[in-house]
Amino acid sequence: MKLKAILPIGFYANGVSCGLKKSGKLDLALIYSEFPALACAKFTTNSIIAAPLIVCKKHLLQAKKFQAVLVNSGNANCFTGKSGIKDAQATAVYAAKELKIASSSVLVNSTGIIGKKLDITKIKQAIPGLVAGLSGAGIHKAKKAIMTTDTFAKEATISLKIGGKVIHICGIAKGAGMIAPHMATMLCFIMTDASITKSALNNSLSAAVEKTFNCITVDGCMSTNDTVLVLANGATGNKVISQGKDLSVFSKALESICLKLAKMVVKDAEGATKFIQIDVCQAKDFNQARKVALNIANSALFKTAVFGENPNFGRVAQAVGASGIKIKEEQLKIKLGSLKGKQVKLLVNLSHGKAGATVFTSDLTCEYIKINAKYN
Amino acid sequence: MKLKAILPIGFYANGVSCGLKKSGKLDLALIYSEFPALACAKFTTNSIIAAPLIVCKKHLLQAKKFQAVLVNSGNANCFTGKSGIKDAQATAVYAAKELKIASSSVLVNSTGIIGKKLDITKIKQAIPGLVAGLSGAGIHKAKKAIMTTDTFAKEATISLKIGGKVIHICGIAKGAGMIAPHMATMLCFIMTDASITKSALNNSLSAAVEKTFNCITVDGCMSTNDTVLVLANGATGNKVISQGKDLSVFSKALESICLKLAKMVVKDAEGATKFIQIDVCQAKDFNQARKVALNIANSALFKTAVFGENPNFGRVAQAVGASGIKIKEEQLKIKLGSLKGKQVKLLVNLSHGKAGATVFTSDLTCEYIKINAKYN
Repeated sequence: MKLKAILPIGFYANGVSCGLKKSGKLDLALIYSEFPALACAKFTTNSIIAAPLIVCKKHLLQAKKFQAVLVNSGNANCFTGKSGIKDAQATAVYAAKELKIASSSVLVNSTGIIGKKLDITKIKQAIPGLVAGLSGAGIHKAKKAIMTTDTFAKEATISLKIGGKVIHICGIAKGAGMIAPHMATMLCFIMTDASITKSALNNSLSAAVEKTFNCITVDGCMSTNDTVLVLANGATGNKVISQGKDLSVFSKALESICLKLAKMVVKDAEGATKFIQIDVCQAKDFNQARKVALNIANSALFKTAVFGENPNFGRVAQAVGASGIKIKEEQLKIKLGSLKGKQVKLLVNLSHGKAGATVFTSDLTCEYIKINAKYN
Repeated sequence: MKLKAILPIGFYANGVSCGLKKSGKLDLALIYSEFPALACAKFTTNSIIAAPLIVCKKHLLQAKKFQAVLVNSGNANCFTGKSGIKDAQATAVYAAKELKIASSSVLVNSTGIIGKKLDITKIKQAIPGLVAGLSGAGIHKAKKAIMTTDTFAKEATISLKIGGKVIHICGIAKGAGMIAPHMATMLCFIMTDASITKSALNNSLSAAVEKTFNCITVDGCMSTNDTVLVLANGATGNKVISQGKDLSVFSKALESICLKLAKMVVKDAEGATKFIQIDVCQAKDFNQARKVALNIANSALFKTAVFGENPNFGRVAQAVGASGIKIKEEQLKIKLGSLKGKQVKLLVNLSHGKAGATVFTSDLTCEYIKINAKYN
């Protein structure tokens, strides 16, 4: 029995099959907090965004506390016009009724094919069973129900003492590639029973996302549905975290959860045979270092060279030069580790300053082409 | 006998095998103008640039007229430090001596593997034969001698009347993919016997490149050696072109040559099975239209969908939204033609304004991965 998830106090989850996936696999997940929770979220910056994200953003402005997150896979409910927004809203209402809470305290999300109408009747019919089955262990079903082309479910948990109390953080994620818009895409839901102020939670999430989910790439495509959402219900009863050491301890823990999940997404990248870590050091600042690292990580030629175990440092130099930063040949030092194993490390020294960034990516393989050429 | 090239008056060319390519294929090309010619060039904007480009840029500043272009394939002479620059300079000197002209009137270029020292002894030994064999028909050898992974040689010619005289423009190019930095990369040399002012030639070339070579992409990688060079020797004796109708006729002809060559590069894209034309219309301006078109053209997911003949318009919407422009779902109209044949057309209407752009690209295939994983 694998039962590693320690759900934070007051959180319950479940996953069922409502029929959106033709395969009959789990495709509807619910996360529920018995205590109203603060919520902070980071969404895709794509200007074409999915309907549930529009509803989510509205609810985040309308309400102060939240109790549920309803997520379906098998359909992204994106590029579906105004009726798509109505559909997303309707599913929040169905869940709210069954849970006997306000619909504005329900957040919704979707992942799957773009441009097809969401069959909300299937969701409506499944909700009573979904709610009735809520439990702590239900997170194992929930994390499977948000998968699309993922080959494994992704979860990370941590417990730590803050202000004399043990608080818990648990996150689940999906994504088989930073982005795969057809099957859109990267979703992450994090629960914590810590008591924390909204601004502290938001800053903490922003900082964590910058260094984790914003430091991974598989194919460089930006999704229409990307979401990282954190719920904090304060059930631990710790002294409210707002600043100082408590906040830095919490932030570090949240970042560690995000990093674990982000790495899992890259490890599950479509068709990948290698997990590549790119460290850029001696940069002017973090943003410059990340820009260079992402440019290498998104280079089809670098990725195919790694796939072919071809130690082609010229392709690294090309990608660094093409990133838009000014650099002279003699300033650039490249150290490419062995390409034989499953883990590959690349170190790039820019001789510019003292900052650095680490980006994770995968190789580009024929299997990626096959998955994305054939997907329907 | 294919002998389509009408070399402009006063131009001669040749190509030989000097031993840089292990295969023994042609790898050293020379273009020579008996009359000193104006030269304008556009180079890669990659901040890591190859040694011959550094020498070329120096000569373009030092001299006013030029008589020769020496190009080798099999080695890009890039990321080769100061000795690489000396080597490039030395090859210009060898050619200049044999041709009995100033070394600053020789322009040099290289294409092939990055990061390996250029064997200039091989070039030195080959130069007497290369010069002795110069002829009009030699352009057929020259265009082969600049090839790397190209599967066919690329040439385009045009003759037209300007100011009562017939002028000729002939261009040759190499590139099998917009960019393949290991085998760097896209080179184009254009000769004309028209008499034209330097500023008119430069403006004409800039405009042509913007709408042709800057509107193609295969893998989105920016090369270290990209060059488009035009030589104008004035041998026709036409009234000097400087403005007005004569200039617009010349510019149109130059653009048509660039467009033909640019399309040939995309048709020869590594591993490609489809030639894709992306028209973006009703954009705010040309730059917005091209930005959107290039973002679609560089999307691995769009390219694999075309390869799989999978009419996935969601991936187009995703790429438009990710391009950074602000657009609402209801403004975006996508028309994807049949994916069954070798030519695919995509029309994207942004409902923003009256401008448009056309971009050419290829699909992304397993063959591309294989070529770039294995290349040594």
